[in-house]
Amino acid sequence: MAGRQVNVGILGFGIVGSGTYHILTDNAEQIEQRAGCPIVVTRVADIDWERPRPCVVSPQQRTTDAVAVVNDPEGDIVVETIGGVGIAQDLVLAAIAAGKSVVTSNKELMAKHGERILAAARDRGVDVQFEGSVCGAIPVIRSLKEGLEANRIRQIKGILNGTTNYILTRMTEDGLPFRDALAEAQSLGYAEQDPTADVEGIDATNKIAILASIAFGLRVPVGEVHREGIAHITPTDIRYAGELGYVIKLLAVAKRGSNGKLEVHVSPCFVPRKHPLASVSNVFNAVFIEGHACDQVMLYGRGAGSLPTGSAVVSDVIDCARNIVRGAQGRVPCTCEGAATLKSLDEIETSAYLRMTVKDRPGVLGKTATILGEEGVSVKSVIQPEAGGERAEIVWLTYATTEHRLRAACARLQETDVVEEIAAIIRVED
Amino acid sequence: MAGRQVNVGILGFGIVGSGTYHILTDNAEQIEQRAGCPIVVTRVADIDWERPRPCVVSPQQRTTDAVAVVNDPEGDIVVETIGGVGIAQDLVLAAIAAGKSVVTSNKELMAKHGERILAAARDRGVDVQFEGSVCGAIPVIRSLKEGLEANRIRQIKGILNGTTNYILTRMTEDGLPFRDALAEAQSLGYAEQDPTADVEGIDATNKIAILASIAFGLRVPVGEVHREGIAHITPTDIRYAGELGYVIKLLAVAKRGSNGKLEVHVSPCFVPRKHPLASVSNVFNAVFIEGHACDQVMLYGRGAGSLPTGSAVVSDVIDCARNIVRGAQGRVPCTCEGAATLKSLDEIETSAYLRMTVKDRPGVLGKTATILGEEGVSVKSVIQPEAGGERAEIVWLTYATTEHRLRAACARLQETDVVEEIAAIIRVED
Repeated sequence: MAGRQVNVGILGFGIVGSGTYHILTDNAEQIEQRAGCPIVVTRVADIDWERPRPCVVSPQQRTTDAVAVVNDPEGDIVVETIGGVGIAQDLVLAAIAAGKSVVTSNKELMAKHGERILAAARDRGVDVQFEGSVCGAIPVIRSLKEGLEANRIRQIKGILNGTTNYILTRMTEDGLPFRDALAEAQSLGYAEQDPTADVEGIDATNKIAILASIAFGLRVPVGEVHREGIAHITPTDIRYAGELGYVIKLLAVAKRGSNGKLEVHVSPCFVPRKHPLASVSNVFNAVFIEGHACDQVMLYGRGAGSLPTGSAVVSDVIDCARNIVRGAQGRVPCTCEGAATLKSLDEIETSAYLRMTVKDRPGVLGKTATILGEEGVSVKSVIQPEAGGERAEIVWLTYATTEHRLRAACARLQETDVVEEIAAIIRVED
Repeated sequence: MAGRQVNVGILGFGIVGSGTYHILTDNAEQIEQRAGCPIVVTRVADIDWERPRPCVVSPQQRTTDAVAVVNDPEGDIVVETIGGVGIAQDLVLAAIAAGKSVVTSNKELMAKHGERILAAARDRGVDVQFEGSVCGAIPVIRSLKEGLEANRIRQIKGILNGTTNYILTRMTEDGLPFRDALAEAQSLGYAEQDPTADVEGIDATNKIAILASIAFGLRVPVGEVHREGIAHITPTDIRYAGELGYVIKLLAVAKRGSNGKLEVHVSPCFVPRKHPLASVSNVFNAVFIEGHACDQVMLYGRGAGSLPTGSAVVSDVIDCARNIVRGAQGRVPCTCEGAATLKSLDEIETSAYLRMTVKDRPGVLGKTATILGEEGVSVKSVIQPEAGGERAEIVWLTYATTEHRLRAACARLQETDVVEEIAAIIRVED
């Protein structure tokens, strides 16, 4: 089947835009064969054509006028790789209004304004695809929408941010403190000079909001997702995790609760060493999915980078092209039925790791254990390493309990004359 | 969008057929919402309705007449879960001829007769989907066709058979000999009473032929795939593998060669302990894919079972239904461009693990190493454990070499008066 040519305009010629361009042009013959039609990049818009780029765009293709690309009467698909929620949103909505199918790798845009954008696409009868917005090359959005869609998804656990996974890997494998691992990640180009979005879990929060919305068919309000970064994780906690049979990962978690509410959070977690997520190292991402029929599925790969994310963007372009050629736009639409209600922190039950500094004197273990018990926090195991001075450490693993109970217990513990500091509280995902 | 009702007939009500039926009926509301149309199982054909089944099929639905289901004028999609290449093939071809889209979980059928079936589907303008034929719940076929399709795939390495992976896991973790691990797998229902298809790699051969055909766009002749089972793997070899930093897995491998030929084989292999495939244990399957843009991707999950395979079959049913409702059948067709030429064993370069029993006397290491060198086999490392009697063992890891060279070297080694036996030769996949 030789369909008509499908024309693509790319907005933004940075990391992802140039990777997309490279794949579409360099591998055009294979892509035409797989898509069933020729796919041609006709326009590329960027504000700055002076910067050196890894691939050459012809003068006929390049422009600084993104609006002209959006409104190009010859254009079929607009690829948005600008990022952010300002001009990118305006251009995406304008492209939809102009009857173009849209492919975007913009996680912030889809997490925050996906509802509006997907409604506009439905009304206009075009596709909006965003595989590249979550986990780079990993076909996780398509797997949830076309592969696991018959499942009642129970939970998703993801390592969705390569920067923090690299930092935690270096801290785990070489005992580096957070600062040094971050500096190394920055020098390698894995972390930005301002690493806030990564290390504070903001990036992963956008991504889990997108995945959970698709998996549970309920739009997750990204601003309500509980979030905790990794800056406070210490080599000490990583060492204790190892002794207890765990590794520490920044996990994005979404679970369907029995009360109809969703539990969604991003935080450093203890992950059992035998769990498939535990061996996901360095900058790699992975998404672990549990459904009522599929049981456990995990998808693993590179979560960022010019060609990996470009690979996902081009798969979306091909999907849009197949629909355009067949007149089947909107074939796999958004299926969110309203907004999700998220559990509050006090409704979330979780096991926890608790490390405290105490005065090194007899009776401390009994006193602190009594308080935990009185506050309804059951203890699974405790380590009290031999101390060499006036202070000692006690490390607890608890059974499932609420944040509320845990905080009440910690408050009482800190009021005693034996506990000097609650040094760490880390979620345990068994 | 509320499309018209799509009617499904299921052929065969065994493990996969009943799982498919259960998911389609039990989760019908969600499936209708995701598919964009109601999907209804109207007929189920099986030769024996006396056997107890986990779910109830109404008298109106059940029949013993598979041909009537195939030709049902009300039917839209036929699901084939009978297995084998006899009656199943006839029914699939008849369904296509009757204008039905077909979903099958039949790996043997697709590996051996996929070309004929997919050509018939193309000519008739219907879909044939077969996600359930490879790796159960894992959406690997869809990921290759719609997710990674812009990539020039370099290689695929898969743990595609859960039975053998369970056996090897038990041998590795508990030191069981093959016979005992097999017996345990049989008692747990993981292995058939006649385990030949699994332990001899026949099942995995069908699956890698299907995956490689899709990945490389060339039909792989399944009868030409090199195949070696796991019955000769011993706890001794597994122990040496561990000492050398490897685990032994039954790998199905497909690589694109520089000469246009494909390298495709199924055999037990040394896998580095840090490789993502190394931690895939028990009955789980995984497919590791390397492409020029995506780099490394791995998909992991349950490779068999009623609901896991049913999950994949139902995703195919939904895909077919979406195409039927939109008039987009054949939207993602077969894109094989002719038959692949496979490398002969002598063209395949591979590192190897070599274990030999030798006479325990001075000079043996030098003599054997000299022969290996003379035959062009370069040695990466060697272990010569302390021996306690007249015999000793020598274990070699070689650099990449051909089967031809390796066999020539082994033949010469066995002619010497010091080598008693070449006890094991196992491929190393670094």
